[in-house]
Amino acid sequence: MRTVKLLIAFDGTDFCGWQRQKNGRSIQEEIERALSLICNAKTTLHGAGRTDAGVHAAGMTAHFHTLSQVAGRDLQKGLNSLLPGAIRILGVSEEPEHFHARFSALAKTYQYTIFTGPVLPPDKRLYTHHVPYRLCHSTMRSCLAELLGEHDFSSFETTGSRDRDKEGGRGAVRTMYRALLADLKDFYLQFTFTGDGFLRHMVRNITGTLIEAGRGKRSVEEFVEIFNGRDRNKAGATAPSCGLCLVKVHYQKDWLEE
Amino acid sequence: MRTVKLLIAFDGTDFCGWQRQKNGRSIQEEIERALSLICNAKTTLHGAGRTDAGVHAAGMTAHFHTLSQVAGRDLQKGLNSLLPGAIRILGVSEEPEHFHARFSALAKTYQYTIFTGPVLPPDKRLYTHHVPYRLCHSTMRSCLAELLGEHDFSSFETTGSRDRDKEGGRGAVRTMYRALLADLKDFYLQFTFTGDGFLRHMVRNITGTLIEAGRGKRSVEEFVEIFNGRDRNKAGATAPSCGLCLVKVHYQKDWLEE
Repeated sequence: MRTVKLLIAFDGTDFCGWQRQKNGRSIQEEIERALSLICNAKTTLHGAGRTDAGVHAAGMTAHFHTLSQVAGRDLQKGLNSLLPGAIRILGVSEEPEHFHARFSALAKTYQYTIFTGPVLPPDKRLYTHHVPYRLCHSTMRSCLAELLGEHDFSSFETTGSRDRDKEGGRGAVRTMYRALLADLKDFYLQFTFTGDGFLRHMVRNITGTLIEAGRGKRSVEEFVEIFNGRDRNKAGATAPSCGLCLVKVHYQKDWLEE
Repeated sequence: MRTVKLLIAFDGTDFCGWQRQKNGRSIQEEIERALSLICNAKTTLHGAGRTDAGVHAAGMTAHFHTLSQVAGRDLQKGLNSLLPGAIRILGVSEEPEHFHARFSALAKTYQYTIFTGPVLPPDKRLYTHHVPYRLCHSTMRSCLAELLGEHDFSSFETTGSRDRDKEGGRGAVRTMYRALLADLKDFYLQFTFTGDGFLRHMVRNITGTLIEAGRGKRSVEEFVEIFNGRDRNKAGATAPSCGLCLVKVHYQKDWLEE
């Protein structure tokens, strides 16, 4: 039995998210269908995590077990020829038997892209959140610094959705290794978050609150108050899914070198 | 009566092209509908030219006449709020009475984007032509140099479609001011063409032939032969519309400074 890892990129615009669902076209289902054809047996894919409807990925991972002997290179070619252009297999690798796309992961990196100019270019509209305001970078960077380290992130969690059976008793406590703001010029800004786990809508809720801080609607102190859970209802709106991209699932501590 | 020019960007993916058509959703029609609402009178838009289905624009222009006194800034805001995100008005300017988006234009610049890597990133698939081969830049640059100046471009025209009544007797003779290849890194290549006019599918036919030259399927000499019309049937396949973008309509000789 082989354990095979897929490195996957997708444009989430037209999908209901990663996970198989009764109503809706999911990334998982599309790949499983193609995989089952190529491996000549019903094949189940285990993703590194879920992504919401409309969220994109440049480096999602998933694994599956198979008795098929199709070489990795041919698997990649076969999958890419069967899949729609919105889903691409970037790499295929053999892994040790105990490898698990989700449980072997040490961290994930998400990026959230914002455009602050007056008119959002049409070809960026599906991959960028339009915030036509001047945002204070320094305020946002101060807020980002507060996120680093181990914290209870429940202030930024969309409730009623946590998979409590699988969280291993750590509740809403997560460790944020990296929380950066990059000015990509021409009105584009990008937040980068690397953490050992992310609660439902966590990046989008953090981003929504950061934007309000950037606009001057909240101070860094208020951001910290929200974060500390003292005034949870004050958290900003959930930023739309289109600006979010799962950039990388880390199986080594390589974010330190990036 | 005001003469107003619009500077327009659009994602052509879901449209039948610029021009109004009986069956299909056109850019012109979408803007005219919004314009007529704002100007409170049926308003006709005169574009700088047509674009094919699926072709994009970063700097299309069009003009219209109106009695409406709505200020340019409000026109832009109003149009952008009524139009889908795939069509954006980048600018609005008042022009002299005799201005015509098409007949006042001195030249147009098109860009064609190619990705030569093995797997095309999903978010680029609607804006890039995937050519997963190593292309010889030097051969393609030699071909591009041959295009400069005044030539009969009928070898690169898709026939049966020229608007012969309006061409002012110049047949298929056009002047190419600029024909460049830029290496954008990470497997992206971009051709830039500036000319006083373009025949139907001309950029896409040139690009298709350039790609075959880049792959080594044709020599520079063969390219010149095709161009000279000695062997017209040898021209390469029409490159797909998704890679093409109308970047600028020039009303001044500003391409010399770019």
